[in-house]
Amino acid sequence: MGYNAAMETKKIAVMQKLLKANDAVAAGIRGELKGKDIFFVNLMSSPGSGKTTLVEETVKKLGRKIKVIEGDIQTTLDAERLQKLGVQAYQINTGPFGGDCHLEASWIQAAISELGTDGMEYLFVENIGNLVCPAEFDVGAHLNVLLLSVTEGEDKPLKYPLAFQVSHLCLITKTDLLPLRNFSLPKLRANIKKVNPACAVVELSAHSGAGLESWIEILKNKPGLKKNKK
Amino acid sequence: MGYNAAMETKKIAVMQKLLKANDAVAAGIRGELKGKDIFFVNLMSSPGSGKTTLVEETVKKLGRKIKVIEGDIQTTLDAERLQKLGVQAYQINTGPFGGDCHLEASWIQAAISELGTDGMEYLFVENIGNLVCPAEFDVGAHLNVLLLSVTEGEDKPLKYPLAFQVSHLCLITKTDLLPLRNFSLPKLRANIKKVNPACAVVELSAHSGAGLESWIEILKNKPGLKKNKK
Repeated sequence: MGYNAAMETKKIAVMQKLLKANDAVAAGIRGELKGKDIFFVNLMSSPGSGKTTLVEETVKKLGRKIKVIEGDIQTTLDAERLQKLGVQAYQINTGPFGGDCHLEASWIQAAISELGTDGMEYLFVENIGNLVCPAEFDVGAHLNVLLLSVTEGEDKPLKYPLAFQVSHLCLITKTDLLPLRNFSLPKLRANIKKVNPACAVVELSAHSGAGLESWIEILKNKPGLKKNKK
Repeated sequence: MGYNAAMETKKIAVMQKLLKANDAVAAGIRGELKGKDIFFVNLMSSPGSGKTTLVEETVKKLGRKIKVIEGDIQTTLDAERLQKLGVQAYQINTGPFGGDCHLEASWIQAAISELGTDGMEYLFVENIGNLVCPAEFDVGAHLNVLLLSVTEGEDKPLKYPLAFQVSHLCLITKTDLLPLRNFSLPKLRANIKKVNPACAVVELSAHSGAGLESWIEILKNKPGLKKNKK
């Protein structure tokens, strides 16, 4: 397609080195937090799927034993929203690193050092709003969660399969908007199953509160953590 | 932050070479299409902001003089949606190129060759659903359009400034959902103005049809094309 193949090959080689280094750091984080019984949840989604709102609602239910790392290209708006709830939140801005569209494990490691693990039972990472890049970088979480709002369309698992494949749980958000859209939940569930049959699915609306109990229940069970202990 | 600076520097150097090569191809496309009086519109947004639906509605109003290049990581779903309307649509899948989260000018050039410019008065590119990477790559359009749906939140211009800075026009989509959300249009408009005072803003709903005439009017005026002719 007239594409500069040599340059692309070089780019891929550099990326593979980065990814390998990243995976090692991620494994270290996962092990360290497991040793301290801290459950680490990585939230991924498109911009505006409701990650921060979900964390706010989760904090209201689970309290201040949650610490949060916020990833954004620019601004500290999300960290400020959470600090208002009395939660320790650390903002990573990727702007200085060329506006990176993902978070890397070494940045998470540095953020954990800043936050400290004392009094922490849950660590949430709100990844950069993006269905592509964050899926490529393991951040060391015990549970990878993908949020998809009902206004985004049922075709997204087929279009962005990797994000769904690396996720243990898919949260279908903003279900209160369902009556207004030609959105088929069975179709979305079938598409998720096609790309990742093992992915659990929970429907919820942080707006109406519907489905939030199921989400909190999963967090209380700390599934990834227990599974890793086997 | 414990970040591998040497590797990052190398990555940035490779990226800069890619971007420079890309810009040259983009300028060539822009000139070539201008010479043929073909107005080239590049649509960027998060996944699920309504790009394909907007193109469908635009095709219904402007007819088959539109040709469309669809960018997706995977699937030909969007091209199929448009082909159903009798429009020539070419699908680029970036999956084979490492799941790239953007389109590059050379890929567009190849797609234009496939589509042919005969009978074409408008070229639409539906970029990869992503508010980060597509903004970094000029595809050669006369009009860069950013779609943001009202369910995505007013803070997005501040969080993803580059996407708004490279855009000539911002379409606020899904306005029929406004009554259901605490979404402030004045706040969003103020945030867009902060990062790009020159960006025009149009509110619309492809669902209800509100605002579509303003969009069609802009297309008929071909603003970027006329401006470039001066």
